[in-house]
Amino acid sequence: MGSRLGKVYLVGAGPGDPTLITVRGLELLRKADVVVYDRLVNPGLLDEAPKKAVRIFVGKLSGFHTRPQEEVNELLIAHARGGRQVIRLKGGDPFLFGRGGEEVEALRRAQIPFEVVPGVSSAIAVPAYAGIPVTHRDYASSIAIVTGHKSCNGKSEVKWHELARAVDTLVILMGLGNLRENMDRLMQGGCSPDRPVAIVGWGTLASQRTLVGTVGTIADMTEQTSFKPPAVIVVGEVARLGRRLSLPGRVVASEGHSRINMAYSKSHRDPDSGILAPPSVLP
Amino acid sequence: MGSRLGKVYLVGAGPGDPTLITVRGLELLRKADVVVYDRLVNPGLLDEAPKKAVRIFVGKLSGFHTRPQEEVNELLIAHARGGRQVIRLKGGDPFLFGRGGEEVEALRRAQIPFEVVPGVSSAIAVPAYAGIPVTHRDYASSIAIVTGHKSCNGKSEVKWHELARAVDTLVILMGLGNLRENMDRLMQGGCSPDRPVAIVGWGTLASQRTLVGTVGTIADMTEQTSFKPPAVIVVGEVARLGRRLSLPGRVVASEGHSRINMAYSKSHRDPDSGILAPPSVLP
Repeated sequence: MGSRLGKVYLVGAGPGDPTLITVRGLELLRKADVVVYDRLVNPGLLDEAPKKAVRIFVGKLSGFHTRPQEEVNELLIAHARGGRQVIRLKGGDPFLFGRGGEEVEALRRAQIPFEVVPGVSSAIAVPAYAGIPVTHRDYASSIAIVTGHKSCNGKSEVKWHELARAVDTLVILMGLGNLRENMDRLMQGGCSPDRPVAIVGWGTLASQRTLVGTVGTIADMTEQTSFKPPAVIVVGEVARLGRRLSLPGRVVASEGHSRINMAYSKSHRDPDSGILAPPSVLP
Repeated sequence: MGSRLGKVYLVGAGPGDPTLITVRGLELLRKADVVVYDRLVNPGLLDEAPKKAVRIFVGKLSGFHTRPQEEVNELLIAHARGGRQVIRLKGGDPFLFGRGGEEVEALRRAQIPFEVVPGVSSAIAVPAYAGIPVTHRDYASSIAIVTGHKSCNGKSEVKWHELARAVDTLVILMGLGNLRENMDRLMQGGCSPDRPVAIVGWGTLASQRTLVGTVGTIADMTEQTSFKPPAVIVVGEVARLGRRLSLPGRVVASEGHSRINMAYSKSHRDPDSGILAPPSVLP
């Protein structure tokens, strides 16, 4: 154990595009002794930590064991007790389905100094990169964000029936696995089968894809197109705006750790699949 | 009119703390020809634009006329047509109650190139700075975000009655003005008067204050303590965690445009007012 306590920084890495990390987050990452990171953190960000920094992967790999949360907590505490600056780098924001609350409680119990550095959430940024504003004066004055998977032993459940009518825009994270079941629950709760749904895969990255359907059709469409996670699902009138607004942005490739600036010159829509063609790469 | 079109960047400035802007946002701001900004944008960020950049304030000042949205749209279009790089700097995220959707539609109609750079939303980051994770495995698996004020001619209304039971955490932005009315509506919708509520004023800044009460008591408490906007209101069990988690972080003063790094050493709670005392300043 070191003679001096280190500190743990819970830093939101943002939604994928590495330039969407905050200035504060990057500053801390560049001084890290240890980086403890999840699966959806962009590899380009890990390159920003000092060469000698220890990098520890604690994310889920599908089909493999998840590292239990208690083990992650112990890891953070042990390194901080060793006098190190620990960056706990999480996709999106640490406190929005990031289990940051639990880590902070563990750090507090262990009397480890910590700081939370919020991040850009994929729930809002990924739709934005697909041209979808989650709120809009004409269509949406309320938004809810939930996860689609069932929590194994979490104590509160998503109320799909109530959500069907309570908000204008519903954003579902980690929702491809139970998509059909959850769309059915929304319809049982009174949601029209014609309500638009957009699914944005690999949001903010070069591989970003969008699929547009409705609450009644999207599960079949997703199966037919073999749409794979990670994906952000947007239910509501705004999901239709993706086409109307076209693609606003810019995506950054994560492959090979190199940053490629790209801009959508024009989006091409495959009328059969509903999938937007990949953006053209600009120099 | 210039011979070459400029471009408009809708950039989220984040929740107040200037270091919570994204790396991409700051990079663009430092190359701006024109910065069109709102009231809640940190003055420290405006200092990051080049000295010669034109700075245009389009925010609301209470008691004064708001610049109509159409006029803001025209301003962005005119400067882009003049060949300039225009940064439309908005508090929080441009697409979460930022009216970014409308600006993007106007730019598209005018065939002006644009890019959206998402930002850290105050809806999630401000509670975080007050020690409140908006989701938590034990308490909250769903979150809704709404605004508390009535939209003058927006087409969709917040469904307070339905929201009362549909989500675990409800975050209300711009909600101090109609607080009593909206808490009443939640209770009419079946929300317990004992449900915890936290109000965080001037979130992420040195002047941050937190008030903790319940759905039944918070309106009176707010009046007694003369709590003033801007504030983020959190309704739900997580609102109680602010004390349990203590204050996680660090706030940055905006006064005098200087950055003062501060950390909460210990939070002192005034038992009469329920207001957390200001943090002590560390070197």
